[in-house]
Amino acid sequence: MDDIVRLGHGSGGKLSHDLIAKTFAASFSNPILNRMDDSAIFDLSGRIAFTTDSFVVNPIFFPGGDIGKLAICGTVNDLAMSGARPLYLSTAMIIEEGFPVSDLTKIVTSMQKTAEDAGVVIVTGDTKVVNKGCADNLFITSAGIGVIPDGIDISGSNARPGDKVIVSGTIGDHGIAVLSQREGLKFSVPVESDCAPLNSLVADMIKAAPNIRCLRDPTRGGLATTLNEIAAQSKVGIHIEETAIPVHDAIRAACELLGFDPLYVANEGKLIAIVPPDAAESVLNAMRQNKYGHRATIIGTVTDQHIGRVTMKTSLGASRIIDMLAGEMLPRIC
Amino acid sequence: MDDIVRLGHGSGGKLSHDLIAKTFAASFSNPILNRMDDSAIFDLSGRIAFTTDSFVVNPIFFPGGDIGKLAICGTVNDLAMSGARPLYLSTAMIIEEGFPVSDLTKIVTSMQKTAEDAGVVIVTGDTKVVNKGCADNLFITSAGIGVIPDGIDISGSNARPGDKVIVSGTIGDHGIAVLSQREGLKFSVPVESDCAPLNSLVADMIKAAPNIRCLRDPTRGGLATTLNEIAAQSKVGIHIEETAIPVHDAIRAACELLGFDPLYVANEGKLIAIVPPDAAESVLNAMRQNKYGHRATIIGTVTDQHIGRVTMKTSLGASRIIDMLAGEMLPRIC
Repeated sequence: MDDIVRLGHGSGGKLSHDLIAKTFAASFSNPILNRMDDSAIFDLSGRIAFTTDSFVVNPIFFPGGDIGKLAICGTVNDLAMSGARPLYLSTAMIIEEGFPVSDLTKIVTSMQKTAEDAGVVIVTGDTKVVNKGCADNLFITSAGIGVIPDGIDISGSNARPGDKVIVSGTIGDHGIAVLSQREGLKFSVPVESDCAPLNSLVADMIKAAPNIRCLRDPTRGGLATTLNEIAAQSKVGIHIEETAIPVHDAIRAACELLGFDPLYVANEGKLIAIVPPDAAESVLNAMRQNKYGHRATIIGTVTDQHIGRVTMKTSLGASRIIDMLAGEMLPRIC
Repeated sequence: MDDIVRLGHGSGGKLSHDLIAKTFAASFSNPILNRMDDSAIFDLSGRIAFTTDSFVVNPIFFPGGDIGKLAICGTVNDLAMSGARPLYLSTAMIIEEGFPVSDLTKIVTSMQKTAEDAGVVIVTGDTKVVNKGCADNLFITSAGIGVIPDGIDISGSNARPGDKVIVSGTIGDHGIAVLSQREGLKFSVPVESDCAPLNSLVADMIKAAPNIRCLRDPTRGGLATTLNEIAAQSKVGIHIEETAIPVHDAIRAACELLGFDPLYVANEGKLIAIVPPDAAESVLNAMRQNKYGHRATIIGTVTDQHIGRVTMKTSLGASRIIDMLAGEMLPRIC
């Protein structure tokens, strides 16, 4: 009877308490969560970062991760991109009636492991169950709180002409890994999601250069969309070099085959940093010593030309404008 | 073309930015949200309360409220039940492809109005769109942050024998209002959800008696389940009097007709307070002067009998055990 999630598990009554005890409380157990009041309570002071994201990725298990790992990494990374040290996370699940409890346990275990890797604590949560056919397996919404160290001012509005644009590694891995799993595609070289918590990388970068201007993780919409957001927010131009952008051969081949441009494919374990020119070398060195940044490289420069626009020197030497993602290329990638 | 939400509105690209600008940013506009970085940033210090809830109510519009009002009230109330002053909220939406933009605008407007009523600010959010048939209209997950004033220690673990049990008003209104809307039931006296932000009521109560022991809003599972949770957490017995529990005549009639027990029906604008006996009168007086507590009344007492159990003296004078909700009575009520 208890091998699938039933509507009663979302009732708030005895079945809910049983499911929570067996899955969430068993995995996430910590003194703040274990109080089991309506709110988690902890002491905090300073400049606080607060963020939320819903995760609706399809399928929920994919090479290199699952929806649970993604939910933790996504929230940790959004906090880290403001320069914050991520501390406390919430997790709210919307589960489709009939979802296997064994899969739920796998996902919850994966969330706890990822939270431990990232050094964050899941302190509060919620579980709702909807009728069969009213959701697609499982949706997770996480929110997170972090503290921004004194003297750090990182924002998409801070880029200035002359700054260097750094990417922490190869692009396009996550989107292609999820798509290949969804469509049952096989490649000669397996592709894996880059899904990872980037807070240790950011901490290393800030230590090397506290004057980093912008950090952002190029998730939905990919590198191209994220750079466009920064160009618009900072009222600058951004010029990148196509040949400098790292892309795995397998991802490049898959993109060519499927008609995707890796510039627009989602990443879940990469970041873009915009740094003053004289800080670029020290930031790069720090990044390359972290396991999530060993392929970090400079891909471009902030300019005072083409304000609000991203331009790219292509591998053929031509220059073209790189727009924000216009339609929908890969739905439900995160 | 733009009268319905399309998959592209969840792409993270241009369509997402357009939808966010037209709906969320237009309604929620405030200096923290308007930075439009990956996290909201603000200063805070002290004992922090942090909570989250997903809302999957069906239908999304019902007498007395809608899913947006519910999402704000639910999160504000969870914070208030820990004694916190609610401050900042996040909102993450999972929208089914094809959902009318006009309905989204109505819900967003309702959220902003409720947030203003409650004195909280929506500072960050997320929007995902899933394929038609992969969600049911719209799900909202909100998270919230509040600050607990010095000297306040409110928890479901704090009830002690001799304490008085207070309910802030009539029970069962929300569940029956949603059910009647869902099933197209008409009653001679219209029933309305009690959905309301209770933070001003809690502030008035704390002012009257800073030594309140427990506060909890009896949502899913109703009054009976919530009292059972407190009895278990505090390791006490709770004894209530059926004739003391306020129930609207229309709700009582509807429950009799439909075979529901109002003790188990969800409320979204009511709270249970457990207070030391010598504080009961001053708390009651404070509650009755607030518009959300004018029917507040004492319904029972905490005892050292039947530890972990709730007992009730029925209207016929018998005594019976009131269990936690066992199965699922009214799915998707919040």
